[in-house]
Amino acid sequence: MTTVHDLPTPALLLDADVLERNVVAMARKVSGLGAALRPHVKTHKCIEVGRLQQQHGARGITAASIVEARDFADHGFDDITWALPLPVSRLDDVIALARRITLRVLVDSSEAAEELERAAQRAGLRVHVWLEVDCGYHRSGVDPAAPAALALARRLAESAHLVFDGLLTHAGHGYHARTGEERLAVAHQEREVTVGFANRLAGQGIAVPAVSVGSTPTMAAQDRLDGVQEARPGNYVFYDWMQAAVGVCRPEDVAVSVLATVISHQPGADHCIVDAGALAMSKDAGPGPADLRRGLGPVYAGLAGGALEDRVTLYAVSQEHGFVGAGDPGGSEGAIAGRFRVGDRIRVMPNHSCLTAALFDEYVVVRGEEVQGRWKIWRGR
Amino acid sequence: MTTVHDLPTPALLLDADVLERNVVAMARKVSGLGAALRPHVKTHKCIEVGRLQQQHGARGITAASIVEARDFADHGFDDITWALPLPVSRLDDVIALARRITLRVLVDSSEAAEELERAAQRAGLRVHVWLEVDCGYHRSGVDPAAPAALALARRLAESAHLVFDGLLTHAGHGYHARTGEERLAVAHQEREVTVGFANRLAGQGIAVPAVSVGSTPTMAAQDRLDGVQEARPGNYVFYDWMQAAVGVCRPEDVAVSVLATVISHQPGADHCIVDAGALAMSKDAGPGPADLRRGLGPVYAGLAGGALEDRVTLYAVSQEHGFVGAGDPGGSEGAIAGRFRVGDRIRVMPNHSCLTAALFDEYVVVRGEEVQGRWKIWRGR
Repeated sequence: MTTVHDLPTPALLLDADVLERNVVAMARKVSGLGAALRPHVKTHKCIEVGRLQQQHGARGITAASIVEARDFADHGFDDITWALPLPVSRLDDVIALARRITLRVLVDSSEAAEELERAAQRAGLRVHVWLEVDCGYHRSGVDPAAPAALALARRLAESAHLVFDGLLTHAGHGYHARTGEERLAVAHQEREVTVGFANRLAGQGIAVPAVSVGSTPTMAAQDRLDGVQEARPGNYVFYDWMQAAVGVCRPEDVAVSVLATVISHQPGADHCIVDAGALAMSKDAGPGPADLRRGLGPVYAGLAGGALEDRVTLYAVSQEHGFVGAGDPGGSEGAIAGRFRVGDRIRVMPNHSCLTAALFDEYVVVRGEEVQGRWKIWRGR
Repeated sequence: MTTVHDLPTPALLLDADVLERNVVAMARKVSGLGAALRPHVKTHKCIEVGRLQQQHGARGITAASIVEARDFADHGFDDITWALPLPVSRLDDVIALARRITLRVLVDSSEAAEELERAAQRAGLRVHVWLEVDCGYHRSGVDPAAPAALALARRLAESAHLVFDGLLTHAGHGYHARTGEERLAVAHQEREVTVGFANRLAGQGIAVPAVSVGSTPTMAAQDRLDGVQEARPGNYVFYDWMQAAVGVCRPEDVAVSVLATVISHQPGADHCIVDAGALAMSKDAGPGPADLRRGLGPVYAGLAGGALEDRVTLYAVSQEHGFVGAGDPGGSEGAIAGRFRVGDRIRVMPNHSCLTAALFDEYVVVRGEEVQGRWKIWRGR
C-alpha cells in the first residue's frame, strides 16, 4: 500500500473524502434553492472530478478556456459554457467545437456579437450565446442600466445565426467580502440585478430563456434563487486558504494540499527550505486583508487531516524553493528549532487552489494517508 | 505566411532575434572571464533553446527539477546539474537518471549526504555531488564559516560512493540590487566567499575540483571569475520586466511576450479586459521596489519591437482575465479611451519570464511580426 510517506515530492494531494463532501453539499444547496448546477471546472481541470459533479446532479459544466472546453468535450461532456467574453481570435476553435457539442459562449459587446454571427453564418450553424451582465463586480459584462445593454440583448435574441441562452453574471466581488453577511448582500445583488434586467427585457418583448449566476462565496451565502435557472460555482470542490480565512469554509473543508520534503535546514536558521516553490504553489498572495494572510500558504500540523500549525507557514517562495518558518526574521528560530529536519515531509494548504492545481500534471488521490489513485489535470493551454 | 495578427490567443511569443543576441552575449561574457557556461534551463524548459546555448559554447546545463533534468536527458543532454538541495523523496529518480547521464546533485546537509551515499552504494554507482555554499543569499547552502561545512566537504570528498564536484553557490540576493554597482558588490561577494572557502578546504587537504557560481544579475555585473570554473545564469535568455526595471537589461532585450486579445471594453470604463490572466502571466508582482512595478506586466506599444506604453499596464488579473489600463480607478479612462477595442491585440511583457513560460505549452517563435515556428515547453511536474 502506497502512503503519503512514500510519494515523490512535490505532489498535489486530493483528499477524496473531503472532495465528495464538498461536491454533495453544494449540489444539495443549489438544488434546494430550485436551480440547476453548472459547476466551473477551471478549479480542478479534471475529468474524474467533473464526472463526480455530474453524478451529483450537475447539468452541464462551465469552462474558463476553449482548450479546457475541448478537453472535457473529448471525454463526453456535451454541454459547456465558456464563461469568458469571447476572444475573437478563437472563433475557429469555437465553431469547430460547436459542431460537436452544445457550446455556449459569452459576449458583452456588439463587436464580438458581430464577429460571432458572421462566423456562425459562414459555418451554417446557430451558436448558443449568453449576454454577460455586470452585477457590480465591474470586470466585464454590460451595464444593465445602459441603453446599449438592451440593444445588444435584442440583437442576440433576434439573430438568425445565434441561440440566445439568456443572462449570465459573476459576482467576483463576493471574494472580497469578509463576513457571511457581506457575502449575502453580494449574493442578493447578483440575483436582483440580473433577474431585474431579465424582467425589464421581458417587458420590452425580449424573452430571456435563463439567468445564470454564481461563485463559491455567493453560493455559500445565498438563500434564494427565484428567477435564477442555474448556478456556476467552481472553487467549492477544493476550497483553499482564501476561502477558509474569510469563513466561506472551514480549514478542514480544503480538499487539496501540496506535499513537500524538507531539503535544507541549516543549524540555527530561522527557516528551512522545502521543495515546493512558486511552480508548486503559485504566487497568489492569498486573502485580500493582510491580517488574514499566511504567506504562500499555511502549513498543516500533519500529513492527513485539517489541523494547521500555529506559527509556521510557507512564508516565501522562489521558483522551486519554499521558505518555511514563522517568517519574522531573527525571531522564528524557536518555531522550527529541532523540527523540520532534512528528509521530513510537510503539507501546505494552497492560498488559491485553482492556480495551484494548474501547476501540476495530476492529483494524487488520498483517503487519510493512503494513496487511492491518480487523476490527470488537463492543464493544456 | 502566419503573423502575430493571425494567432489564437493567449500565445507566448519568443523573439528569435532577441533570443540569439542574448545567448551570444552571455556566452561571450562568461568565456571572456575564463569560465565555462552551464546555463540554467529552468527559464525556458525548451530543447531548442538549450541546443542554441550549446551551439554557443554551453558545457552542460543546470535544471531546477528532476523531471526537467529527465526531459533534457531524453533529448541528448548528458551532463546536467540539478541545482536544488537533494529532496530525498527523489532518490530513486536520481539513481535512475545517474545510470544514463552525468547527473550532478546538490547537498547542504549530512542527512541528505548520508541518504545519497546509501542509495549510490545500493545501486553500485558513484554519484556526482556539489556542496552548496551560502554566499550571502541565506536561502540554502552551508555557512562556509561553520565547522560543519568543513566536515561535510570532507565527507563528500572522501566518500567511496560519491564523486565530489566542488562548491556551488547562487547569489539570489543579486536580484534585490537596484544598480550595477550593487550587483557588482554581490557578484564579488559570490566569487570571493566561494573561492575563499575552496582555498581553505585545499589548505585542509580537501581538493575542490571546481567552483560554480552565477545568476543573471551577478553575471551581468561580474568583472572577474578567477578561481571560478563555471557560471550558471538562466534568466538572461529571455530577461523580463524585473531585470529591465533595475537595469540588468534594456526593455528591448526582453525576448518573450504574451500576445492577448481585447475581449471586453465597456463604454466609459477606465479599463478593458484581455484574455491573459494569472494562468498566462503568473501572479509574480515583479520588481521588489514598488516604484518600479508595472502591475502584472507593462503593455507594449505594438505587436513587434520593444517600445512600451507610457501609462497602460496589465494592472490586475483573475484566472483568465487581465485588466488593462492606467490602474488608477476613475483617473485612467483617458489612457484607453478610443483605443483597445474588442478584437484588438496587445502584447504584455512578463514580470518574471521563468514563471510565465511555465504556464504555456509552447513558444510561438517570431521574427518581427512573422511566425517562424513553435517550440515545445517541457513543463511536466
